[in-house]
Amino acid sequence: MDELEIDAVAEVELDDPVLVEGLPGVGHVGSLAVEHLLEELEGDSTLVRRIYSHEFPPQVSVEDGVSELTCAKLHAVTVPDGRDLLLLTGDHQAQTNEGHYVLTDAFLDVAEEFDATEVYALGGVPTGELIDEYAVVGAVSDESMLEALEDAGVEFREDEPAGGIVGVSGLMLGLGERRGFEAACLMGETSGYLVDPKSARAVLEVLEDRLGVELEYESLDERADEMEDVIGKIQEMEQQQQMDVPTDNDLRYIG
Amino acid sequence: MDELEIDAVAEVELDDPVLVEGLPGVGHVGSLAVEHLLEELEGDSTLVRRIYSHEFPPQVSVEDGVSELTCAKLHAVTVPDGRDLLLLTGDHQAQTNEGHYVLTDAFLDVAEEFDATEVYALGGVPTGELIDEYAVVGAVSDESMLEALEDAGVEFREDEPAGGIVGVSGLMLGLGERRGFEAACLMGETSGYLVDPKSARAVLEVLEDRLGVELEYESLDERADEMEDVIGKIQEMEQQQQMDVPTDNDLRYIG
Amino acid sequence: MDELEIDAVAEVELDDPVLVEGLPGVGHVGSLAVEHLLEELEGDSTLVRRIYSHEFPPQVSVEDGVSELTCAKLHAVTVPDGRDLLLLTGDHQAQTNEGHYVLTDAFLDVAEEFDATEVYALGGVPTGELIDEYAVVGAVSDESMLEALEDAGVEFREDEPAGGIVGVSGLMLGLGERRGFEAACLMGETSGYLVDPKSARAVLEVLEDRLGVELEYESLDERADEMEDVIGKIQEMEQQQQMDVPTDNDLRYIG
Amino acid sequence: MDELEIDAVAEVELDDPVLVEGLPGVGHVGSLAVEHLLEELEGDSTLVRRIYSHEFPPQVSVEDGVSELTCAKLHAVTVPDGRDLLLLTGDHQAQTNEGHYVLTDAFLDVAEEFDATEVYALGGVPTGELIDEYAVVGAVSDESMLEALEDAGVEFREDEPAGGIVGVSGLMLGLGERRGFEAACLMGETSGYLVDPKSARAVLEVLEDRLGVELEYESLDERADEMEDVIGKIQEMEQQQQMDVPTDNDLRYIG
Repeated sequence: MDELEIDAVAEVELDDPVLVEGLPGVGHVGSLAVEHLLEELEGDSTLVRRIYSHEFPPQVSVEDGVSELTCAKLHAVTVPDGRDLLLLTGDHQAQTNEGHYVLTDAFLDVAEEFDATEVYALGGVPTGELIDEYAVVGAVSDESMLEALEDAGVEFREDEPAGGIVGVSGLMLGLGERRGFEAACLMGETSGYLVDPKSARAVLEVLEDRLGVELEYESLDERADEMEDVIGKIQEMEQQQQMDVPTDNDLRYIG
Repeated sequence: MDELEIDAVAEVELDDPVLVEGLPGVGHVGSLAVEHLLEELEGDSTLVRRIYSHEFPPQVSVEDGVSELTCAKLHAVTVPDGRDLLLLTGDHQAQTNEGHYVLTDAFLDVAEEFDATEVYALGGVPTGELIDEYAVVGAVSDESMLEALEDAGVEFREDEPAGGIVGVSGLMLGLGERRGFEAACLMGETSGYLVDPKSARAVLEVLEDRLGVELEYESLDERADEMEDVIGKIQEMEQQQQMDVPTDNDLRYIG
Repeated sequence: MDELEIDAVAEVELDDPVLVEGLPGVGHVGSLAVEHLLEELEGDSTLVRRIYSHEFPPQVSVEDGVSELTCAKLHAVTVPDGRDLLLLTGDHQAQTNEGHYVLTDAFLDVAEEFDATEVYALGGVPTGELIDEYAVVGAVSDESMLEALEDAGVEFREDEPAGGIVGVSGLMLGLGERRGFEAACLMGETSGYLVDPKSARAVLEVLEDRLGVELEYESLDERADEMEDVIGKIQEMEQQQQMDVPTDNDLRYIG
Repeated sequence: MDELEIDAVAEVELDDPVLVEGLPGVGHVGSLAVEHLLEELEGDSTLVRRIYSHEFPPQVSVEDGVSELTCAKLHAVTVPDGRDLLLLTGDHQAQTNEGHYVLTDAFLDVAEEFDATEVYALGGVPTGELIDEYAVVGAVSDESMLEALEDAGVEFREDEPAGGIVGVSGLMLGLGERRGFEAACLMGETSGYLVDPKSARAVLEVLEDRLGVELEYESLDERADEMEDVIGKIQEMEQQQQMDVPTDNDLRYIG
């Protein structure tokens, strides 16, 4: 296998499509969101490209005994009443700094092939604490995109995210801009400790507005409820532990 | 030396051979198994290729004062009443992610040269506890291979191995499939803590069925007995230590 | 994007310019110094080159919601009464050993393009303790440069810096020398624990002498005062903590 | 600078020279030995090659304020009554696995240029304890070399060094053998904790026998005496500390 191989699985005519990236990251927000899009738009979507690379881990996944080599996948979606989509998913990010550059350029090559000129990179931004109101923080490759996204509820903050944006989502902006794409990164606030379907929903609601897609959230809300149960159990266990810890008074008896 | 060099040590005519890979890994199951095959079939085997690579550690092994540069070796075996074999052994795996891709492709190049179309990658799957009944868990590059292996006693489980298969064994499936090989990975269950000759035997018994080889296990069983002794001694030491640990009561006397 | 891309943003005619490097490093001395130069000479400076590379982290910075791909920048400065300057700044060093070689060569390529033959690499040398008198330690690519710099107050010490000079600043000397540049590294003493504007000022005062620039230090002194406040608060907190720690006598009461 | 650059500093005619490698390693045995050779044979030696590489750390050393880019150096020595020598020294080994392959091949390229066909790689083998009698353990690229080295006092042991030989010294054997060199590695036993001039002397005494060089050891013995002093002080401090540690009885008083 060459360092990079792009398999053309199918060809689909798209009308001015938007690339939406959802590779794994903080709180799995981006991948949850794009996988939900795929699920909801299943009837209109076709797997068009598989991207294999030495930059991915040397690994197969196994389902019911059958293996699949690590790759990224692009699905083409013809959306009846909205913008056509190219959805980018996968189980892994690149494993080296250089790999992020190489793979992002490969993803943008495919986007160009389908005449896409807009990119949305989806992800999470960690806040370090559990969240009630899920804000969506944004970053764009060009100032001209700020207003429409602000109107859709995206927050642009003076120095956030503080350390910039790293990995494929960051380079979708950085390399995208250099190649003439209009690229935006939408980051759902998330604690950073857990898989976060609610944050994914917040991000998708922005996309609904911008892309003219209409989504239902039943399956995502179910996963959110499951996560609530997990959080509840963790909190219970923590409270139990605190009650079991000897107090200062107890400790005095030891000596 | 170039980044990759394949030395043709000898040429042997093989009839539709099967590549069997046994590089070091969990419990040394794969390497124990293929080395046992080599030992048992010694009279019919010839070293045909040595594969050197910058991806191997920069290292020589030394035996009786004479050095040998790290490499992988391929032996051709003409099996009288069964399938001919290409046995892949070596002391090391690749040292980088990319190296696993590069070396697996090199191994498959040699397999193609000998007209092999089937691959068995042997290894261990860690269970975290000592094992009584040694199951062999499988993964295949194509669904069509499942039945015959199930008949030979291989177990295919819904989501196992959970993290997929990493390294050369995983890529034998993943790259093998892309290049048109039928590839199976046979993983003997093993604790993951110790070299495990019993697990290697379990894997070999599947191969006997599939390849029409007949093996004796005396030397492997001897190594298994030695390991049992080691385990026995470790358990004794642990029990002894537990008896030596002062109880809470003992501790009260210190103050 | 290629592994390395140099964007020509503007062209400026310079007269025998000096390359001054201030990428991030110990105490941020080098970057503080060159950024102060840029600020003070703003009226006479033009951004001439942006240097992008796979060797930089795969990252964008975000300011007010707009992203910028990690790069190094070169500003051309026409100094009215002194030497013309090429100022090299950026948010990151290379991320690999090889990357330092690749990027330093790229920086020197641009310097050659502007007919520069002299290089000053600015940085800090860590002393491990807070500093009253800020010495500037030097290293040069050629003995002939020692005297003039000693006259400007630079100290050259027998075996310092002990471990040599690593990264871009070191290679500005090492690769610079091989390519025919006269290169000097000016390292302000700094504790190594904190961003150090005073050390940056010490380094700049040497440059004023050597390059015929005249600088004001108001903004840098303000940052130094801010740092003093930070140090003061840290010291207060430490003293407070020491007072709160139970003495040996206190401890005796516990048992 | 290219990934690898070999500067021809001077040309010297050598008669069937032997390459002797002494890059840094365990106990600095190899580098101490070859640097002592250089010092003793100074009158007859000429620096012939400097080897620069991206595989070396991106670093300059600084002496009296003047920088030198990290490199390896080859000196040619015309030995009046013995074999001519090519002495390989340097401050660093390669920084990556692949780098060891690349640099060792470069060193052997230069050796071929000077018509060398024999290589001695010098180093230390760690024993983990202080040593009274300094044995020299050997490894050779070809069995035929064993006898002469055994006659010179080198010990060849069944499974030593246990983990093989890693780095340039190992590859001098491994790559050397593949390129038709006769290569031996001489490893002085050493504790592994300290720079060990005595171990270097043991290795050099073997070389004296094999190469017909005659060496004096005054300066090396002085360094050994200095190390003895250091060891003595460490042992004193350890004994002192043991006396200061409260005994079990002392501890009883605390509670």
